Amino acid sequence: MKSRIRLLFACGLITTAAPACAFDILQPLPKQPPIPADNPQSKAKIELGKTLFFDPRLSVEGTLSCNSCHNLAAGGDDDGAAPRAGKTPLERSAPPLWNVAFQTVLFWDGRATSLENQFKEHLTDARVMAMPSGEAMIQRLQTIPGYRDAFARAFPGPSPVSVDNLAKAVAGFERTLLTPGSPFDAYVRGDKEAISVSAKRGLARFDNIGCLSCHFGVNLAGPAPGPAIGMGEGFYELFPNHLGSIYDEKYDLARDIGRYAVTRDARHRYMWRVPPLRNIALTAPYFHNGSVADLGEAVRVMAKTQLKRDLNDQDTADIVAFLTTLTGRFPELTLPRLPDTPGLSLLGGHASR
Amino acid sequence: MKSRIRLLFACGLITTAAPACAFDILQPLPKQPPIPADNPQSKAKIELGKTLFFDPRLSVEGTLSCNSCHNLAAGGDDDGAAPRAGKTPLERSAPPLWNVAFQTVLFWDGRATSLENQFKEHLTDARVMAMPSGEAMIQRLQTIPGYRDAFARAFPGPSPVSVDNLAKAVAGFERTLLTPGSPFDAYVRGDKEAISVSAKRGLARFDNIGCLSCHFGVNLAGPAPGPAIGMGEGFYELFPNHLGSIYDEKYDLARDIGRYAVTRDARHRYMWRVPPLRNIALTAPYFHNGSVADLGEAVRVMAKTQLKRDLNDQDTADIVAFLTTLTGRFPELTLPRLPDTPGLSLLGGHASR
Repeated sequence: MKSRIRLLFACGLITTAAPACAFDILQPLPKQPPIPADNPQSKAKIELGKTLFFDPRLSVEGTLSCNSCHNLAAGGDDDGAAPRAGKTPLERSAPPLWNVAFQTVLFWDGRATSLENQFKEHLTDARVMAMPSGEAMIQRLQTIPGYRDAFARAFPGPSPVSVDNLAKAVAGFERTLLTPGSPFDAYVRGDKEAISVSAKRGLARFDNIGCLSCHFGVNLAGPAPGPAIGMGEGFYELFPNHLGSIYDEKYDLARDIGRYAVTRDARHRYMWRVPPLRNIALTAPYFHNGSVADLGEAVRVMAKTQLKRDLNDQDTADIVAFLTTLTGRFPELTLPRLPDTPGLSLLGGHASR
Repeated sequence: MKSRIRLLFACGLITTAAPACAFDILQPLPKQPPIPADNPQSKAKIELGKTLFFDPRLSVEGTLSCNSCHNLAAGGDDDGAAPRAGKTPLERSAPPLWNVAFQTVLFWDGRATSLENQFKEHLTDARVMAMPSGEAMIQRLQTIPGYRDAFARAFPGPSPVSVDNLAKAVAGFERTLLTPGSPFDAYVRGDKEAISVSAKRGLARFDNIGCLSCHFGVNLAGPAPGPAIGMGEGFYELFPNHLGSIYDEKYDLARDIGRYAVTRDARHRYMWRVPPLRNIALTAPYFHNGSVADLGEAVRVMAKTQLKRDLNDQDTADIVAFLTTLTGRFPELTLPRLPDTPGLSLLGGHASR
């Protein structure tokens, strides 16, 4: 942790907002995100992915689309109250999708490393889309003429309608969801007046108490995409790192054991990915369990549980002011027209309803 | 019923598609719908209503927006599988919202006669938005700065944020949801080649077996808006009218007693509004209980239960061809940006989640 703080000071970022820092600790949002070699972008693919993203027929009972929980009319998240297809509710808050293209670690416990895999897991998760199988999903999509055509256009070649291609299309669309133009971006690019005095103090405090040791890079969520990075320092972080504060019980922080549930590796107990901070002011409630409704309180909880710091009101307000500068400009999206099955419902039509 | 059929022939609609028929039995979609005197349209009101329409914070747990069940990316309905906020599921299919401005009778049992009242009932219905009260809704909206401003713009005067104004804004937006340009409209306007030979045969059959006696007017759903019309001939219809067919059991048609549940008037047992037929090919499944997945089967069921007719395959296919000409052009909609509450969630943030 210490070394990162030193790096930051070495860059002079805090005092001069120098844009030339080689260490990528604070970065403006790039114009284009990294695109995986095996899923190049195309207009047809993005359009298809967008349509699929809004289509509730991707869930078993036709009740949920991706947008139900990752609401693109808002912060790309669920406001703490996600609908779900299955009987069992999700115990974790839906993370925001805006700028997700810059994430290398997906799900709160980091159990996926690509948007394609993240999508595939949700598709058959009984708590989310709850499709009985990928084959069932493909069979359903095959009966929708408009999708047969759109997959063929987006994926020239044999068997265009496949789970892999479905995941690629949705991920392709998700990679277009960027919110450039935040005051933070202008500041990091060198416009020293782009953020308030309070926000500047907040950034300095955010650095000097140690927040930046995890929250750095494009999304302030750890390492930027690149060669696979092993799990380790700065990548995942224990939360709560310091058990025993009043917050453990108040916000039920110690119930969910995090990545341990996936790996059964004792070192991963309470280990979580570093959550991205762009648009954080729009994605309340906070933490994996959505237990904290208020950003200031979330800052206090983090300072205490991760850094053993008690923040005063001024520090808290300043850090909130800094975090609010991470709110970007949301592009206008047109609602897609979902391809129809004329005269036929794929989901209704059972008399026992 | 007989008199209506005679009127239709007198208009020469079947044989010449004369657009000048005075009896409004078949009408193209008007350019503008009727607007109630107490809720005039304005740009600010329509924009606000659209935003509210897509906002899940209108439901108690933030899980449902109007668009969840009345999906404007599709037929404006729910594909037979509506999500709902409460524990008790709705027993009736969500009717389509496109062209709803021309409906004078709302809900399957006609218990509302304005979109404003329809909205207000849904707001506190425990199976739908499930808000504990209108006051609770207003209190929530008051905490969202963007809504305070938008209501003030749309409703100049004291106390702009009110349940009445909320309903007026949503209804105002709903009245803009029109799908002009259907082949049927072109045909009724005089373009005899706008629909296929099969569709023309279907329309003739639709008339001469008696469907038009109820399904006439702009939405083929009975009388056009105007002075309040008493419940009677052509307005509501018993369904099933002729009990005893195989369909009663097959599609569970006799379980829901329709309007009787509202009025407790014995004459209203199995009484329903006449469902609108525009875009009917896109709004499967069919009937109040969404029990029939297929339009051809729905046509057979209607012919048998309402008119004691057994249709052969050709007649059924022709009537389906005619009904498919009622599919219009859907306008492009941009997804609204939901006004935010920076740094704060109105819905999440409870540790017990």
